[in-house]
Amino acid sequence: MCRLLAYSGDPTFMDTLVCAPKNSLVRQSLHACEGKTATNGDGFGLAWYGDREEPGLFRDLRPAWSDENLKSLCAQVRSPLFLAHVRAATQTATTRANCHPFSCGRYAFMHNGQIGSYHRVRRKLEALLPDELFDQRAGTTDSELLFLLILARMEEGETPMAAVGTVLAQTKEYMVKAQIPEALRFAAILSDGQTIWAFRASCDGLTPRLYLRERPGATIIASEPLDNLRDAWTQVPDNSVITIRQGLAATTEPLVIGEGSWPLAA
Amino acid sequence: MCRLLAYSGDPTFMDTLVCAPKNSLVRQSLHACEGKTATNGDGFGLAWYGDREEPGLFRDLRPAWSDENLKSLCAQVRSPLFLAHVRAATQTATTRANCHPFSCGRYAFMHNGQIGSYHRVRRKLEALLPDELFDQRAGTTDSELLFLLILARMEEGETPMAAVGTVLAQTKEYMVKAQIPEALRFAAILSDGQTIWAFRASCDGLTPRLYLRERPGATIIASEPLDNLRDAWTQVPDNSVITIRQGLAATTEPLVIGEGSWPLAA
Amino acid sequence: MCRLLAYSGDPTFMDTLVCAPKNSLVRQSLHACEGKTATNGDGFGLAWYGDREEPGLFRDLRPAWSDENLKSLCAQVRSPLFLAHVRAATQTATTRANCHPFSCGRYAFMHNGQIGSYHRVRRKLEALLPDELFDQRAGTTDSELLFLLILARMEEGETPMAAVGTVLAQTKEYMVKAQIPEALRFAAILSDGQTIWAFRASCDGLTPRLYLRERPGATIIASEPLDNLRDAWTQVPDNSVITIRQGLAATTEPLVIGEGSWPLAA
Amino acid sequence: MCRLLAYSGDPTFMDTLVCAPKNSLVRQSLHACEGKTATNGDGFGLAWYGDREEPGLFRDLRPAWSDENLKSLCAQVRSPLFLAHVRAATQTATTRANCHPFSCGRYAFMHNGQIGSYHRVRRKLEALLPDELFDQRAGTTDSELLFLLILARMEEGETPMAAVGTVLAQTKEYMVKAQIPEALRFAAILSDGQTIWAFRASCDGLTPRLYLRERPGATIIASEPLDNLRDAWTQVPDNSVITIRQGLAATTEPLVIGEGSWPLAA
Repeated sequence: MCRLLAYSGDPTFMDTLVCAPKNSLVRQSLHACEGKTATNGDGFGLAWYGDREEPGLFRDLRPAWSDENLKSLCAQVRSPLFLAHVRAATQTATTRANCHPFSCGRYAFMHNGQIGSYHRVRRKLEALLPDELFDQRAGTTDSELLFLLILARMEEGETPMAAVGTVLAQTKEYMVKAQIPEALRFAAILSDGQTIWAFRASCDGLTPRLYLRERPGATIIASEPLDNLRDAWTQVPDNSVITIRQGLAATTEPLVIGEGSWPLAA
Repeated sequence: MCRLLAYSGDPTFMDTLVCAPKNSLVRQSLHACEGKTATNGDGFGLAWYGDREEPGLFRDLRPAWSDENLKSLCAQVRSPLFLAHVRAATQTATTRANCHPFSCGRYAFMHNGQIGSYHRVRRKLEALLPDELFDQRAGTTDSELLFLLILARMEEGETPMAAVGTVLAQTKEYMVKAQIPEALRFAAILSDGQTIWAFRASCDGLTPRLYLRERPGATIIASEPLDNLRDAWTQVPDNSVITIRQGLAATTEPLVIGEGSWPLAA
Repeated sequence: MCRLLAYSGDPTFMDTLVCAPKNSLVRQSLHACEGKTATNGDGFGLAWYGDREEPGLFRDLRPAWSDENLKSLCAQVRSPLFLAHVRAATQTATTRANCHPFSCGRYAFMHNGQIGSYHRVRRKLEALLPDELFDQRAGTTDSELLFLLILARMEEGETPMAAVGTVLAQTKEYMVKAQIPEALRFAAILSDGQTIWAFRASCDGLTPRLYLRERPGATIIASEPLDNLRDAWTQVPDNSVITIRQGLAATTEPLVIGEGSWPLAA
Repeated sequence: MCRLLAYSGDPTFMDTLVCAPKNSLVRQSLHACEGKTATNGDGFGLAWYGDREEPGLFRDLRPAWSDENLKSLCAQVRSPLFLAHVRAATQTATTRANCHPFSCGRYAFMHNGQIGSYHRVRRKLEALLPDELFDQRAGTTDSELLFLLILARMEEGETPMAAVGTVLAQTKEYMVKAQIPEALRFAAILSDGQTIWAFRASCDGLTPRLYLRERPGATIIASEPLDNLRDAWTQVPDNSVITIRQGLAATTEPLVIGEGSWPLAA
């Protein structure tokens, strides 16, 4: 399990969220409050949008809590939309390529969750990728794979919501075929630089949490509140997607996953 | 605060202590039981004695829990005497040169403790080092500095116990002069490849713990027990030094620190 | 292109070959004489056999020339059979998992060469791997893929020579189908801890070189001589395999690649 | 010896100088044309000025040529004034803290040169630092030490030129006292975010080169030309300082070093 946050709003120095708050993401790398693991020391990453269509990407495999580069970059760079992540590796290696966020063209993606017994369905899922997206695969995580699978559906014209629904349904189907009893859980953030989509779903109803905070000129999604103002943070409902566009109120819609409705009956 | 262990006995694969036990040192890097901090993820190190007079030194700034090199090295190398350490940095940077153990010639040293307000006495203490030992200074920690100060006394003919006593007294004196209210605490291991000396002392009586376990052919000192057999582990008394020589029972002596007796009255 | 060496003989400290010679492997990381690139600074690795059936593996992504851990390990560890490699990355990332040697069970492997336009045949070649070997795939290089493909054939009962011949033929066939004009070149070392096999072959006759040196109690294969005694080093013939077993003279045999003979007519 | 560049002018994406040119700084990390060493693979660094008074600092110990973070950061960040450096370590360790540029408050500094037999004067020179600047010392290089010594003089009211002159004279004096025959050579860039000062001096006349290129809205100083337009690049004269202020033509003045004139008679 990992910790993450995403911001959309007036351009702000990234350190105001990543480093400064009482329960900042950097703090969570060492002492997360709500994560399955208190320590999220297996690397970190930032994807921020600035003057280019593609996001900047800064990822490293050291713990976030001691990285001077992260601190300096966050203190310098002002962005209207960025994603940040600290990682607690489950089964895959601690490498830069396995750190979130992942990016591809103008898209950035990060994830907290898991494909249960991932190694047993990895090859079949990778086989679904078109060649050009397979070539973008740099690491070995299930998260990056889900990202590329979602992009593949989007390239065929699906909306982000539809693409996520299709990919989760398909992944679960493969897991069932492989008789995998572990769950598929998915709390994820996707952005194209203009819009942030935040997803929550799991086949067993144990989806990692996401919290939303809206202020004038600033919307934040995070895996746990960054401060003690618990009332200011709304929990994102399960099996839903939140859409955040600058200047508009965040909207919540149910996430349709294949033909069934999640969580599945046990 | 850090976690550490030292072994002397029949040559053994290092992983039997560093990686395998229920509460192995690698486990303690992520979930220490007794340390001030549960996470000791700011690098790690090994010093092991083999066929040469000087120890092998392997240190890296990644967390121990995810380092494949550490795992492989410990699985391969059999040693009759080794030191291992996982670090929780206090004020100094996460670099290889700041990872314990430190080595100099045939000596290796590691430490759990602190010089309170270290930066205020650092220069004065460094000024005590002879040139050739100052040149060995590769990092910026108080621990490495204490090691080199101790070696300086030993080069002048003092025993390890006397050298430690002198250096602690002198350090405390400088701290007092600088009106530093924080404590000097010292739980440390020194070895020359034949003998292990384990020291515990602090000016305020809050010395980090050390535990001793003796079995035929195997003596272990560790900052916390490696297993649930609590009875098998004896606490090293405060203000004492334990001397471990292969084939002999460990001996405990009081540690004489300057002219006074520690802990000092508040 | 990379630089590599392998040793079989009386147990020797690894630094006698890796660090000490005038043209040591560490020296070659910065100033190779014969490689396509003078600098081989994209990581390094060691696989050494000791008291266990599986080799020790030590790989890092820093340049070999400045790595203190490599120096210390090589100074300490004595081995009767080891492989060492410094890397010049071609298209794949600088990560530990992409550093040679690779290991799997008791086998170790390293490579200097290339699959031309590798990304265009990667998926098809990976599809040939049985699941359990695919799961061993930790990096993204063509070299690791060739290693696992060779192991797959060996698990089906082929000798190392036959397995290499089959895999090279098959790889070339896939390259031809994909209309890849670039060459397949292969200079590689495989070992199971008892025997070293050194292979040289390429479809265009431009195989990277390998040199053999035999002394009583010490056989060395390297991508370039480690010293100025050029007469002491014999070039390994193209399209051949050398087999080195402790206590026996090295033997050279032709390498049979599929049904044709290499180099292929242009 | 290292390679470096500094830019002042209209805000520009850093990759236009660091990554894009035919002979970009990243290219020079692997294949420098004019440096004493072709390979400058012992880390790299950037200091850029943006919306804050203090510069952003991004340094890492990997070779610049393979660092994805460097590439992405340079592609994203637009700056009116930045410094970039690739390092070829001479005697000190490859750590982030030893990578240039160094920063302190709003100042940034980088250096190509050396204090001959540095370790023999290091302690004496460090003793000249006031406590608060000594506390800023994070690494072990002669370059960082020179930077802090220069800042110490500037804090006492000297101009950057006067401070450099004083420090070089003093350093040489200490070298003479220590009977050090090797030279003191200094090609360095200092900035406060508004002005760039570029210095060249050495006691033996063998100062590393610096080149100046001025275009409307863009002034560049580099240790070697970034392109083939050799006529566009002017060599900075020895024993001089160039001052670059946005919107003004660069000015060149002689650098006064102590009371003598450099190079010194042999």
